[in-house]
Amino acid sequence: MPATTADLIRLFDLTEVGTGKFRGPQPDTKWQRLFGGQVMGQTLMAAMRTVPPSRVLHSLHGYFLRPGSREESLRFQVEHVRDGRTFSARRVITRQLDEVIFDLDASFQEPEAGLRHSAAQPDGVPHPDDCMSLQDVMQLRFGSPIRMLSEWDALDVRLAGPPLPTEGGGVMRAWVRTQDDLPDDLRIHQAVLAYLTDLLLLSVSTVQHEVEFISPNLQVASIDHATWFHRPARCDRWLLYDMVSPSASGARGFCQGRLFQDGELVASCAQEGLIRQVG
Amino acid sequence: MPATTADLIRLFDLTEVGTGKFRGPQPDTKWQRLFGGQVMGQTLMAAMRTVPPSRVLHSLHGYFLRPGSREESLRFQVEHVRDGRTFSARRVITRQLDEVIFDLDASFQEPEAGLRHSAAQPDGVPHPDDCMSLQDVMQLRFGSPIRMLSEWDALDVRLAGPPLPTEGGGVMRAWVRTQDDLPDDLRIHQAVLAYLTDLLLLSVSTVQHEVEFISPNLQVASIDHATWFHRPARCDRWLLYDMVSPSASGARGFCQGRLFQDGELVASCAQEGLIRQVG
Repeated sequence: MPATTADLIRLFDLTEVGTGKFRGPQPDTKWQRLFGGQVMGQTLMAAMRTVPPSRVLHSLHGYFLRPGSREESLRFQVEHVRDGRTFSARRVITRQLDEVIFDLDASFQEPEAGLRHSAAQPDGVPHPDDCMSLQDVMQLRFGSPIRMLSEWDALDVRLAGPPLPTEGGGVMRAWVRTQDDLPDDLRIHQAVLAYLTDLLLLSVSTVQHEVEFISPNLQVASIDHATWFHRPARCDRWLLYDMVSPSASGARGFCQGRLFQDGELVASCAQEGLIRQVG
Repeated sequence: MPATTADLIRLFDLTEVGTGKFRGPQPDTKWQRLFGGQVMGQTLMAAMRTVPPSRVLHSLHGYFLRPGSREESLRFQVEHVRDGRTFSARRVITRQLDEVIFDLDASFQEPEAGLRHSAAQPDGVPHPDDCMSLQDVMQLRFGSPIRMLSEWDALDVRLAGPPLPTEGGGVMRAWVRTQDDLPDDLRIHQAVLAYLTDLLLLSVSTVQHEVEFISPNLQVASIDHATWFHRPARCDRWLLYDMVSPSASGARGFCQGRLFQDGELVASCAQEGLIRQVG
């Protein structure tokens, strides 16, 4: 588990094992399967390692192709898709035991000025100090500490009110930041942001249904994930993660998230996942 | 130009030139550059041609890497990323004159039942019969027929009210359908849907700014595009395309679209594009 912020940072300290080839450290996790956010964050870091530091990540699109295992480290192979005058594109194939478990496309840009606007941060959201931690919420609901959550101890996650069913789909809001400070390296903050966007998001697709998200009767798995990084943000300061699920159909839930900091939209994301009723 | 629905359908009639290799017909376009929707729709069709017909497209993610030209046909190379028990994943590289201009990842699924919900279609949208066609709107604004729009004559596009600046970003709504009936092949409808999502969407990012989207002072280009196909829909019947732009920053505009039919959300999409002020 990345039980501390330092453990989380270490996850993104990949070892270069060849040209465009990297290997990632594994957390001491209690899960059978790897957390998708770890796979995505590490894969993203592999892409970042091959791009000049002046070029800043602004979007990623990835597909989860097979479940990852904790037994074996992840290996990343980066393809230079394009290096243009102001943009760079990378593709990364992530393998475990010679099977592709994830692939990612990411785009980077030399910073430039231009038109600016931002969606407004929702009003009336309670302050993090007045919100229950996710651990406490889960303990209340399931009666005992949920062991899987130790995986995320590096993050301070607080539910900003209860998840709400609405006419068209569920809504959930959470405050998220790392427990301790992160280094002043934008790439670490972007990798941690990618990591934390995979938290909670898919569960919003079940908020208005008579099912438990964590249950042997529901088979859940991320299918894809996209994030757009609109502005630099720090993940060791509070981010408001505003999530909705506009659709569920065909055993797939579709969810969108918006991350706000200091009143501005710093990132948007979208994810589809399998939510298959079984048993 | 695909001046008729038949011309539009012909765009998606790719020629197989090898295992997983296809070539696409070019429209008789007046544009210097190819319309991104054409590149995306044809690339998608290449992926579809390699998947068993029982598996239905549910998502795509693509990056526009170089502008396409009308001089040369597009060539598509499909990679079988995975064929699982219920899902298939494909990657397609789209080339012109040996340069990669677009890449696409798409996912397909054997239809299955499951939890269902849908965002509600917005209220108070005027009926298409009461809305001006995009051609008429453009002619009023620019004083003469805009030649580029003949490219889209196969589509009946009507603006459902004027584009509106809002506090957090622009909003635009349009009704869209093909002029004539399409065949009863879901793949054609999905390719046409991908084609038409590239229409108007990026322009929403400039609605609240003092710039013209079609102007020598603004360099615009799609960067990426993602679409999730929640439910089967017919593109020869009215689709309500509800578009917002939650962010602009770093010369990039970010836009999201929702497509409704018969009151249900049938597809969601997101796109980032370059909106660079020049001159």
